[in-house]
Amino acid sequence: MGGSNEILNESEKEAGDESLAVCLVSGGMDSCVTAAIAREENDALAFLHVSYGQRTEARERRAFNELADHYQVTRRLAVSIEHLKAIGGSSLTDKSIPVTEADLASRSIPTSYVPFRNAHLLAIATSWAEVIAARRIYVGAVAEDSSGYPDCRPEFYQAFQATIDAGTKPETEIEIVTPIIHLRKSEIVRKGTELDAPLHLTWSCYQAEDRACGRCDSCALRLRAFLEAGQKDPIAYA
Amino acid sequence: MGGSNEILNESEKEAGDESLAVCLVSGGMDSCVTAAIAREENDALAFLHVSYGQRTEARERRAFNELADHYQVTRRLAVSIEHLKAIGGSSLTDKSIPVTEADLASRSIPTSYVPFRNAHLLAIATSWAEVIAARRIYVGAVAEDSSGYPDCRPEFYQAFQATIDAGTKPETEIEIVTPIIHLRKSEIVRKGTELDAPLHLTWSCYQAEDRACGRCDSCALRLRAFLEAGQKDPIAYA
Repeated sequence: MGGSNEILNESEKEAGDESLAVCLVSGGMDSCVTAAIAREENDALAFLHVSYGQRTEARERRAFNELADHYQVTRRLAVSIEHLKAIGGSSLTDKSIPVTEADLASRSIPTSYVPFRNAHLLAIATSWAEVIAARRIYVGAVAEDSSGYPDCRPEFYQAFQATIDAGTKPETEIEIVTPIIHLRKSEIVRKGTELDAPLHLTWSCYQAEDRACGRCDSCALRLRAFLEAGQKDPIAYA
Repeated sequence: MGGSNEILNESEKEAGDESLAVCLVSGGMDSCVTAAIAREENDALAFLHVSYGQRTEARERRAFNELADHYQVTRRLAVSIEHLKAIGGSSLTDKSIPVTEADLASRSIPTSYVPFRNAHLLAIATSWAEVIAARRIYVGAVAEDSSGYPDCRPEFYQAFQATIDAGTKPETEIEIVTPIIHLRKSEIVRKGTELDAPLHLTWSCYQAEDRACGRCDSCALRLRAFLEAGQKDPIAYA
């Protein structure tokens, strides 16, 4: 899962064998910390943002750009896949389905699940990585202590890795890296602080775009994480 | 791989257990014959068309609609994923890369390969199938005697099947069906004729939209298929 810069020896660096990684950056806390990790482990980054007609699209796009500015990433691709809105089936893309208030004890899949969304994100990341010759794709998926979405589980990423291996050119070698998949949300906060990740630029709320609502699934998970990490969330809440 | 209607027993039919299948319909010959097979094997069909900024986009969309009209399919979704054009890397989406003339003897991947394209198509089909409760996705991929694209091989579809199983809700059961993947192109022509598939409505040419060029990879494969099947291709060539 991605070595650090330190293990590249000098001759590799001199040969111009620059390692480039695509980083999926939604603009949320998890993708921010994932980008901070990716920056430690690669010579160059390319940031990919995918919006899909979700309620807080514009706010998330702003967070993406501010994170890219922060890390001085000039290679950016922002893609809009509005068909997920046309397909519907989620409270994030269909305004007739309410964004439910968080029930962190529940084991069922929340209404905010966007059917098979992460496969779309990975397909775009893979096509881009194949064309720009990036060798890794970083995704800030979190399996435990989190959403309950089926497309955030390690099995999903393992299966998608096999799909990449089978469905790209023989000479293409792309590895999916999910560096925070087994972390608790509070550990992600701590990791972010340790790496000086700009958490104040991130946006997590599913519902509002000015001040975070503090009540949706995503806000509830975030607030609990900061509480457990013993830190103050730097963004504003309603 | 999808039984025929005949093996459904009457009690299942009476219970209103209608089988719905999503059919990926590009508008080409392979997807037309696949749709003809899907129609035999399912109670109801939903047609999905995905354009991606390829040169002959408008002509293919017309073929899609004419095929849907022919089969009286009202459930249609036409999606445009222009980011594959932004990503580039293919002669189909980047006009600075010429569409090469066919070299059917070559073993290399043609310039018309759109990086990882079929993963995008399957992701869209899966999201839609999950929302409309379709149980099968039909894809007219052809592995042998064909394009040489990595994302047309059986291994790719097997890996994607595992991705669907891992990345959708536990109660979702969606099966990818690739009924012509092992057929030669000439067998596809014969199968189409046998099922009375409207091959005259299809469009295969990568280059032209009025009369097929007859020289690109796709035209060359199609013409050879009709020749080997001993039939006349009903569409017009330049």
